[in-house]
Amino acid sequence: MNTKPTATESQPVAPVSAVAPPPLDPGGLRVVALGGIGEVGRNMTVFEHGGRLLVVDCGVLFPEDDAPGVDLILPDFAAIEDRLDEIDALVLTHGHEDHIGAVPFLLKMRPDIPVVGSTFTLALLAAKCREHRLDPVLVEVAEGQRSEHGPFDLEFFAVNHSIPDALAVAIRTPAGVVLHSGDIKLDQLPLDGRLTDLAGFSRLGDEGVDLFLLDSTNAEVPGFVTPEREIGPVLDDVVGKATQRVIVACFASHVHRVQQALDVVDKHGRKVCFVGRSMVRNMGIAADLGILRVPDGLLVDLDAALEMPEDQVVFVSTGSQGEPLSALSRMARGEHKQIKIRSGDTVVLASSLIPGNETAVFGVVNGLVRLGADVVHQGGAKVHVSGHASAGELLYLYNAVRPSNVMPVHGEWRHLRANAELARLTGVSPDRIAIAEDGVIVDLVDGLASIAGRVEVGHVYVDGLSVGDVGESTLSDRLILGEGGFIAITVAVEAGTGRAVSPPTVSGRGFSDDPKALDDVVSMVEMELARTEGEGITDTHRIAQAVRRVVGKWVADTYRRRPMIVPTVLPVGS
Amino acid sequence: MNTKPTATESQPVAPVSAVAPPPLDPGGLRVVALGGIGEVGRNMTVFEHGGRLLVVDCGVLFPEDDAPGVDLILPDFAAIEDRLDEIDALVLTHGHEDHIGAVPFLLKMRPDIPVVGSTFTLALLAAKCREHRLDPVLVEVAEGQRSEHGPFDLEFFAVNHSIPDALAVAIRTPAGVVLHSGDIKLDQLPLDGRLTDLAGFSRLGDEGVDLFLLDSTNAEVPGFVTPEREIGPVLDDVVGKATQRVIVACFASHVHRVQQALDVVDKHGRKVCFVGRSMVRNMGIAADLGILRVPDGLLVDLDAALEMPEDQVVFVSTGSQGEPLSALSRMARGEHKQIKIRSGDTVVLASSLIPGNETAVFGVVNGLVRLGADVVHQGGAKVHVSGHASAGELLYLYNAVRPSNVMPVHGEWRHLRANAELARLTGVSPDRIAIAEDGVIVDLVDGLASIAGRVEVGHVYVDGLSVGDVGESTLSDRLILGEGGFIAITVAVEAGTGRAVSPPTVSGRGFSDDPKALDDVVSMVEMELARTEGEGITDTHRIAQAVRRVVGKWVADTYRRRPMIVPTVLPVGS
Repeated sequence: MNTKPTATESQPVAPVSAVAPPPLDPGGLRVVALGGIGEVGRNMTVFEHGGRLLVVDCGVLFPEDDAPGVDLILPDFAAIEDRLDEIDALVLTHGHEDHIGAVPFLLKMRPDIPVVGSTFTLALLAAKCREHRLDPVLVEVAEGQRSEHGPFDLEFFAVNHSIPDALAVAIRTPAGVVLHSGDIKLDQLPLDGRLTDLAGFSRLGDEGVDLFLLDSTNAEVPGFVTPEREIGPVLDDVVGKATQRVIVACFASHVHRVQQALDVVDKHGRKVCFVGRSMVRNMGIAADLGILRVPDGLLVDLDAALEMPEDQVVFVSTGSQGEPLSALSRMARGEHKQIKIRSGDTVVLASSLIPGNETAVFGVVNGLVRLGADVVHQGGAKVHVSGHASAGELLYLYNAVRPSNVMPVHGEWRHLRANAELARLTGVSPDRIAIAEDGVIVDLVDGLASIAGRVEVGHVYVDGLSVGDVGESTLSDRLILGEGGFIAITVAVEAGTGRAVSPPTVSGRGFSDDPKALDDVVSMVEMELARTEGEGITDTHRIAQAVRRVVGKWVADTYRRRPMIVPTVLPVGS
Repeated sequence: MNTKPTATESQPVAPVSAVAPPPLDPGGLRVVALGGIGEVGRNMTVFEHGGRLLVVDCGVLFPEDDAPGVDLILPDFAAIEDRLDEIDALVLTHGHEDHIGAVPFLLKMRPDIPVVGSTFTLALLAAKCREHRLDPVLVEVAEGQRSEHGPFDLEFFAVNHSIPDALAVAIRTPAGVVLHSGDIKLDQLPLDGRLTDLAGFSRLGDEGVDLFLLDSTNAEVPGFVTPEREIGPVLDDVVGKATQRVIVACFASHVHRVQQALDVVDKHGRKVCFVGRSMVRNMGIAADLGILRVPDGLLVDLDAALEMPEDQVVFVSTGSQGEPLSALSRMARGEHKQIKIRSGDTVVLASSLIPGNETAVFGVVNGLVRLGADVVHQGGAKVHVSGHASAGELLYLYNAVRPSNVMPVHGEWRHLRANAELARLTGVSPDRIAIAEDGVIVDLVDGLASIAGRVEVGHVYVDGLSVGDVGESTLSDRLILGEGGFIAITVAVEAGTGRAVSPPTVSGRGFSDDPKALDDVVSMVEMELARTEGEGITDTHRIAQAVRRVVGKWVADTYRRRPMIVPTVLPVGS
């Protein structure tokens, strides 16, 4: 069978005109993603039935180069901000930032939305909410349980992922049965024995699933994800051979990865020191809940670890994505105050290489290697497996669920399209596969899911303390400034006459290291001011425009560069 | 045998103090890289013997995020700029930009340096020099030939790489025999039948190679590179199945990749249209030299191609690295004037994914998929093979050459270290392996290569028309401006008294989309000006400092952001 994804004949997906959303059939169910489709991150899907809303997940997206200076990108709440009182519940499928990170921002708008999730998911959320001084209404659920919220009758299924206690959710309404996979894979030998409930999905499939929303992340990857537990022996080998310090870096929420590290360290008689705020916090939560088993006396704090012989300790650290302020990055630059890498130390990056982070991660690897460390990463050793089902597993899921309609979620366009093709291969009719990027309205009416329109879904940027005031115009300016800097020209003119009353002040930042680079500008601006004065131009905006034009032309001709030209014309009392 | 690269005990590589270079033993040979070691790009290695210099390669590095707005990064000529007359020749191993791109900048400093290289390499260089209005002194050589330049007796060897007509060079001086591989792999079934001359290397090894400089790019990759010719059948399959337009994107210098595309297109009775200035230019040169075989009547120009039925033409295009201004990127955004992607079109990215370009490349893939194209790339199909030897091939090279000393070149630290380990595994003594990043001086004296010191090697940036005026200070400003924009405050004060003679002008760019974001600043600055006036402060720099301080503190407290604060205090006549 050829499972290579190719273009399918699924429903047309080009932008639908952005008019007001069409009315929803009274017996129908509407699905709109406010984030997470057409991108990997900020997952948030809104279900509507009978005038009530159910939200699944509410995460953040970490910005890339096109959003410089931005800390986080939120789902766009605009489509529901006038309807917050209609939300019956917010369901969280699991505790990753791209699924829970934006919850505080939603709860600030309406603090009493019931938040439904598993024990570990809610524990991570509660810790996050404390930092935001929020006290959410938590509804704890577990696999096998049901929970009703307005017209939404929910059933939860165990799901295996790269964080414990993940859930899929079935949403029953009079419009039909919807299954949302959350993030999912089918590890058949999970470390905690908690399998993805394929049997439960089959039973639901027997009942009839009208719409299946399924994780697309690895739909392009053929085959099956290697079991998580195969990483343990690799770590065992690395720690066993090491004669000096070992640092294992991984995601701070990957409890099972950390568990394997702890077990290996314990076996070799070393101690473990957690490094990084989120690692310390999350592993504390996991240990308290009994999700992480910590052998007695295994953990030591940093001060104690630094006093111990180098072959007696393993640091388990954050920073696996090359985050510049992380402990690991500082070690790689030789700037970490306490932990100095020496020739012969071992660093394991037991983590994925998230697309877009390659330069940063390899920068850290090169820095560590330059200091003499032996760096073990997924490029050369099996120290990471994905948390998302590959194509082979997705086929199992489609065959178990046998959905009437499919909506690929959690992915960029290439992932969505590949997932759609897998659905088609298992027998789903192409016209019942809706590739619906953020904002596209999918209505399930009389058992048929179809694209019914589109709402505007923008990017909402968090920069420092404020949300939303940094928008496309600011980012566009940042991109120009970041590429070319600016040249500022300030002149004071006599109000009324437009006569310059001081020589122009010219300064550039981000333009040139040469102190003489702008020497020609003063006389050029003086000539232009003489011209504008001669023409009787007194309006400061027109004078500024004239200055911008001559300086802009000069810099383009002389340097072939496009700095921002910032003229300020200050009228002073005549 | 365990060939997994691990930390070796090769010579210490930490920064050597940057004092004046130590004297070179009169009978010795000195090697210093001015670019290309510790990075992938701007390759340039200087050999010195008897007071004379030989330069091998002179390429550019394409900048990453840490050098915003920069077009190119050059090798740092500072170490030789006072010694240009001592250069006996510049040898170019092959025609890639990272080996020839900086030649015009060197020739502008001394136009009559003899430039030695193969036919195709020099043809590409000549085209480049014409654009720079330079008329270089070219010395054409071929494999098997020798060429003397001052004390440097050169011998050239055929080398297989991802561009035709590549050479390795042996450099004989009284100090010993050095072999520089250039970029190399060992395709045993090369498309043009021109094998890397392993037999020649063996003969040289019999004579005794004192120092071997070897390409490290793929030293971390186990095994062997797949033969280039295996791509042909994959392209054949793709073109054969396509019922509409096909676009094949690859590097504009990869003649053999293009050759395979042409042969496949010809077989299927379609025509070829080259798209992209460098593709048209280079393939013209290759065809003129007989390196590219173009069947009669195969090529059509763009106007003709657009008139033809969609199943009758294949576009061979640049843009495979997601370059935003390339034709392919414009197609992916739906902005190409002539070529509109339709559902069912096929796009093949027959190219590597250069680290750092992932976001751009997948942006193009997603754009094409969103428009309905079937995108074939190396993630899912064998449409690319590397041009650099994998670890297995490097072992063959070490075993053929049997060098006394080794200097890994062409790579980041992780690559250099892995290459060093391969040398060690073949029997090279670790203390004879010099990992010498840019600027590190390696002296070959009495058959022993050792690190003797270090010269300063900085980054030389080309931005627009000028070279070198953009430096670390400008880049640092650009990074700050790109992250946070700026807030400019302009005040006019009475010269002599420091009394404000106009209300402050406050404006931000790249700071906020909210027009009221800076409303509080005017009164804050007015209060501060009243304070400075009250304290009798008349110095405009001190007033500006005071303004910067209050506004900086306010923005940090209010927004938790760090825009650049740009105060301008304009003294006007009292």
